[in-house]
Amino acid sequence: MDRVTKSYILPDAFSSVPKLLNYIHLGSLRNYGKGEIILQPDEIIGRIIFVLSGRFIASRITDDGREIFVSSGGPHSVINRLFEFEGDNVQIVAVEASKVCFFSEDQMLMIFKHDEKIISDFLFNENLKLNYFIKLSCELKLYAPSIRVLRLFYGLYNLNGKSKDTYWEIQIALPNKVIAEITGLHHVTVSKILGSLKEKKILRKKKNAIIIYDLEKLKDLVDKGISY
Amino acid sequence: MDRVTKSYILPDAFSSVPKLLNYIHLGSLRNYGKGEIILQPDEIIGRIIFVLSGRFIASRITDDGREIFVSSGGPHSVINRLFEFEGDNVQIVAVEASKVCFFSEDQMLMIFKHDEKIISDFLFNENLKLNYFIKLSCELKLYAPSIRVLRLFYGLYNLNGKSKDTYWEIQIALPNKVIAEITGLHHVTVSKILGSLKEKKILRKKKNAIIIYDLEKLKDLVDKGISY
Repeated sequence: MDRVTKSYILPDAFSSVPKLLNYIHLGSLRNYGKGEIILQPDEIIGRIIFVLSGRFIASRITDDGREIFVSSGGPHSVINRLFEFEGDNVQIVAVEASKVCFFSEDQMLMIFKHDEKIISDFLFNENLKLNYFIKLSCELKLYAPSIRVLRLFYGLYNLNGKSKDTYWEIQIALPNKVIAEITGLHHVTVSKILGSLKEKKILRKKKNAIIIYDLEKLKDLVDKGISY
Repeated sequence: MDRVTKSYILPDAFSSVPKLLNYIHLGSLRNYGKGEIILQPDEIIGRIIFVLSGRFIASRITDDGREIFVSSGGPHSVINRLFEFEGDNVQIVAVEASKVCFFSEDQMLMIFKHDEKIISDFLFNENLKLNYFIKLSCELKLYAPSIRVLRLFYGLYNLNGKSKDTYWEIQIALPNKVIAEITGLHHVTVSKILGSLKEKKILRKKKNAIIIYDLEKLKDLVDKGISY
C-alpha cells in the first residue's frame, strides 16, 4: 500500500476493502431496492456494512428532521456500524438496487485472524474517511462560501485536470445539488456563483465536465472569493 | 464495550486504548519537552502514536501557514499515523512534557494477534473520532456562528449539567480561545456572544464552570441565535 495517498476531494467511494469479497459466505446478505433504507437513523445494528453492488448515500438527520449529506459509495465500500454513538442519526439509503453483506464483530475478528492484510486495509479505509472529515471541518471553519466552491473546483483541477490546448477540462458529472451538499451551501447560491464564473469567462460547468478557461484567474479568486 | 456511547462534545481525549500499555516494550519510547513538536506537518512516520503521559494538541496547517485546531489528548490517547494523505499537514505538539510510544504497522499486527480485543478497542477509537468530525462538519454546514456556540453550551449541559437549586452548573474550564477553536469563530466574537448572554442573564462563564441561569431561554436561543 502506498504510504502517501491523494486526499479525497469528494466524499464518494472512499477507499474500499475488496478483499472482503473472499469472506461473504461468513456474513448475511441482503438485497435492497432503489430508495430502500439500509440503515434507519439511530438503528443499532452492530455490524460492518460491505457493499457488493449498487450505490448508497449516507446522511445525518438533524433534530428538526433535515437531511445533511455525509458521503456516498458503491461496490466494495465499507461502513463501520459496529459501534453506535448517541445522537448519531445516520441514515443510509440505497440509491440504486443494491446487494449488501453484513458482518458482525466476531465475524470481522475471524476474517482479520485469517488474513491480517485486511486489518491494514480496513484501518486505512477508516483513516482516509477521518482525514476527509477533519479536512472538511477545517475548510468550513476557515473559508467563506464562495471560496469553498472555488477551492473545490481548484482541487478537482489539481486531481484530474486535462490540458486541452486553450482550456482545461475536468471530466466529472457534478450536479449543483452535490456541490451544494459538499460545501454546505444552498443550491441557489451555487447557481449564482457558477453564473458569475461563466459571465467572467473563468469556468463553465457542463453536464459531464468542468471547463476552466482562465486558470490564473481561478487561482487568484481561490484566495479572494468572488461576488455573486 | 457498551454499544451506544455518548457522542463527544469536545474534541479532547477521544476514546483511548489503555490496553496498549501492556505492549510498550515492543514500541519505541520518546520524551518531549513542553512545546516540542511530536509530528511535523507532512512528516511521514508510518507509526501509531500512543501517549503514555503528558498532553498534545493536533492542528492542521493551512497553505498560508495558519494553524487550525483539530483535537487534543492526554494519557492513553492514540493517533493513527500509519498512513499519510497528501496535503494532510497535521502538526502534533506536546503542550506539556510528554512521554510517547511509537508502534509500527508490524508491531500493531503482532499486538492485535496477541490480544484481539485491542482490535475492537482500536476500531472503536477510530470510529468515535470519525463520528465527531462528521458531526462537526454537519454543525458547521448548518448553523450560524452564534448558534454553534449556544449548541456547544447546551450540549455540555446535556452531558454534565448539575442542578443547583436556582441555576445549573457545568464544571469545566473552557477558555474563550478553545470555544473559538472548536466552533470556528474568532475569539472576539465568542467574547461578544458571552457578553450578550451575561447581559441577558442567561448564562455566565466562570474560570472553572459555566453557570446557566435561564435554561428555558438558552433552549429557545439554540433555535433562534442571539444578537451580539
